[in-house]
Amino acid sequence: MRDLQTVRGMRDLMGPEMEIRNYLKSIAVEVFTCYGYEPLDSPAMELWETLSAKGGEEVEAETFKFTDKGDREVGLRFDLTVPLARIVASNLHLPKPFKRYAIGKAWRYDRPQAGRYREFLQADADIIGSDSPAADAEVVLLALGFARRVFEKDYIVKVNNRKVLRGLVEVAGVSESLANECFRAMDKLEKIGKDGVREEFKERGISNSATEFLLGVLDVKGGNKAVLSEFRDILSGNKVGLEGTEELEFMADIFDSCEVNEHIEFDISLARGLDYYTGPVFEGKYLGEPDVGSVLAGGRYDNLVEKFGGPSTPATGISLGLDRIVDILLEQDYASKLETDLDVFFAPINSDMVKHGMKLRNTLVEMGFKCDIDLMDRPLGTLLELADSKDAAYTIIVGERDLNQGEVSVRNMKTKKTETVKLKEFRKAISELLGR
Amino acid sequence: MRDLQTVRGMRDLMGPEMEIRNYLKSIAVEVFTCYGYEPLDSPAMELWETLSAKGGEEVEAETFKFTDKGDREVGLRFDLTVPLARIVASNLHLPKPFKRYAIGKAWRYDRPQAGRYREFLQADADIIGSDSPAADAEVVLLALGFARRVFEKDYIVKVNNRKVLRGLVEVAGVSESLANECFRAMDKLEKIGKDGVREEFKERGISNSATEFLLGVLDVKGGNKAVLSEFRDILSGNKVGLEGTEELEFMADIFDSCEVNEHIEFDISLARGLDYYTGPVFEGKYLGEPDVGSVLAGGRYDNLVEKFGGPSTPATGISLGLDRIVDILLEQDYASKLETDLDVFFAPINSDMVKHGMKLRNTLVEMGFKCDIDLMDRPLGTLLELADSKDAAYTIIVGERDLNQGEVSVRNMKTKKTETVKLKEFRKAISELLGR
Repeated sequence: MRDLQTVRGMRDLMGPEMEIRNYLKSIAVEVFTCYGYEPLDSPAMELWETLSAKGGEEVEAETFKFTDKGDREVGLRFDLTVPLARIVASNLHLPKPFKRYAIGKAWRYDRPQAGRYREFLQADADIIGSDSPAADAEVVLLALGFARRVFEKDYIVKVNNRKVLRGLVEVAGVSESLANECFRAMDKLEKIGKDGVREEFKERGISNSATEFLLGVLDVKGGNKAVLSEFRDILSGNKVGLEGTEELEFMADIFDSCEVNEHIEFDISLARGLDYYTGPVFEGKYLGEPDVGSVLAGGRYDNLVEKFGGPSTPATGISLGLDRIVDILLEQDYASKLETDLDVFFAPINSDMVKHGMKLRNTLVEMGFKCDIDLMDRPLGTLLELADSKDAAYTIIVGERDLNQGEVSVRNMKTKKTETVKLKEFRKAISELLGR
Repeated sequence: MRDLQTVRGMRDLMGPEMEIRNYLKSIAVEVFTCYGYEPLDSPAMELWETLSAKGGEEVEAETFKFTDKGDREVGLRFDLTVPLARIVASNLHLPKPFKRYAIGKAWRYDRPQAGRYREFLQADADIIGSDSPAADAEVVLLALGFARRVFEKDYIVKVNNRKVLRGLVEVAGVSESLANECFRAMDKLEKIGKDGVREEFKERGISNSATEFLLGVLDVKGGNKAVLSEFRDILSGNKVGLEGTEELEFMADIFDSCEVNEHIEFDISLARGLDYYTGPVFEGKYLGEPDVGSVLAGGRYDNLVEKFGGPSTPATGISLGLDRIVDILLEQDYASKLETDLDVFFAPINSDMVKHGMKLRNTLVEMGFKCDIDLMDRPLGTLLELADSKDAAYTIIVGERDLNQGEVSVRNMKTKKTETVKLKEFRKAISELLGR
């Protein structure tokens, strides 16, 4: 007996989960396309030289890495940003800004846990070559456009700027080497509360005065304009901090003009884990149930392409966590809202009738209807039950006597009423019945 | 400097090639769905135990295989059939027939050559649990449905039956151990001609009389009905051969009824390389230029699920070779027929205008239009050239003076005429201009 499991941390997807995923992919493609992004696909596998360019021990530990038959070290991509950086660094002729979207799988040798898989689906949109905060605003608007389609109203995107954070630690007098640790502790505010952050600061050797200053700053609340004006006060005289604030103000003006303010929250605690962010950072959440944490995230990463040997190239982007969004919609029974039900199930009353059923089915398929047909020569009673279980709107019974009279029997599976339809008027009649 | 290549035999896809691939995927999904197939996704990686169940030295040589950090042997899937067989063998509750489609990548450690990549895209539709030739006919109809959408008229699907071939070699008196070799030689008829096949038979030690008999059979030509009736004559008295012929006759009746005969050719030389086929086999070609060989293929494989430890389960399916079809359509400049052009490019005349442009762009995106906007603060002349190079239908120039008068300038990029549109009537006006 074979071991028929999937590889640990990976899974098969079918049924409603799969229907929802496909739906989300199609919405993502629609939104990306409407915002002017073009599709790009890259291999699942990259040379280890490429993957390791992003740096960090994490990469080494988390990558599915192996030696291929030609003795080259390769690995499965762990995100869609590394392939993008490789492509941009090696295709210098790409017109800028280069706006691409990519939807594909990535792999991480993570500890498997709820909502976290070793194979996961990403949907990314990035803008390469524009250093304007307008580009950052655009990817946030894109994310909001996607969220609106999927969640209707209950979502928020938090926005901050790494430059603001850098300014803050400068003002607080924290040494540069501790800055990233400091950001990471602040980023946990929501999870561990202010006391938790204080504890983390202590462990990292942040001074008492710096700790109290930074914790005080975390209290900044209010409308977006008010928050940004507080940023200005706190950072007054700090160059990088004010530069970051100005970028956020530029973005705020755009959000204001686009009337999406209610879905935006400037949040000074937001840092995002990845060290490669250099400017604005964003993180989106669904506000309803279930709460699965962040469902989309991104930010500006102006140094990445350079790390891959390309010229200094500004870049910003957003990544939609489709797997988590599938989990949310699945729990809301969203699949039942999707139009995936059969329009017509064909029930040939014997195997001689199959060919006639197939012909009629082909006719309806060409008209765009979803149709299935029995392929097992089963009795009519069984077929009607089957049609019911498949939520077919109609069952068309294909019998010899009917056919000889130039007609078929069409059963409405809701009302359980059967009517005969002339074959001469077949297309028109079914079109009318299905209202399309 | 980093080595920025892709892994050998793998490639990035963008521009027209990528647009065409996406289009083909969407057509495949539409056709699969309309024929009643449900989506299934499985991981890129499988346990080696699973992958090797299909057997054969080829599998060992061609699989990207490695040991993961947990010391398990794993590999990248080399087709979508193995994961399907695993899933069916381990999910005995799946209602039968189980009709699933899968679109995804697979990987083979092949020698890279034109049109053959180490990472390739497959689109498969399979029916698990029906032993009726109606199921085989259905997957062929599905393939024809796809081909019609993509190639219009110029395509053919060749059909044969492994049982017919088995009957033939029995009648010819070829030993069972040589049968598969014999099929493989016959399968090359189109490539190497009759003399080539004769040579191959000789090398394999097929007797002269068997060789002449089989080469004679290869002459069978004519309409589908005539060919099948010749099969009957040649195989008269041979049980498996006649069973195979009857199955093809059943399929032929369906093709006849569905009026797709002109796209079907019963071809006694067709064997398909894979040893696991047990019944009808199919192979589809595009008849126009360029000739890239087979673009879709499939057949019945009634023993595969059992090999994976499941119960004896009849199965049939078809696989669309999307990569090759992309190559065909690319050469035909098909991408220019796809509606991927921008509807509107927004040109804010300075950075203060960006927010207004973004708002108007959002409005049009919500209406489903494809819009881009300048994110680089470039002069109007440059932006108009850019809009041209992006084939935008209209450029909307967002300037301060216009806005103050409650209007924007809309430039038709074909006629190069500019008109002003009142913001109050913005949606309606753009809708009318774009005819949607």
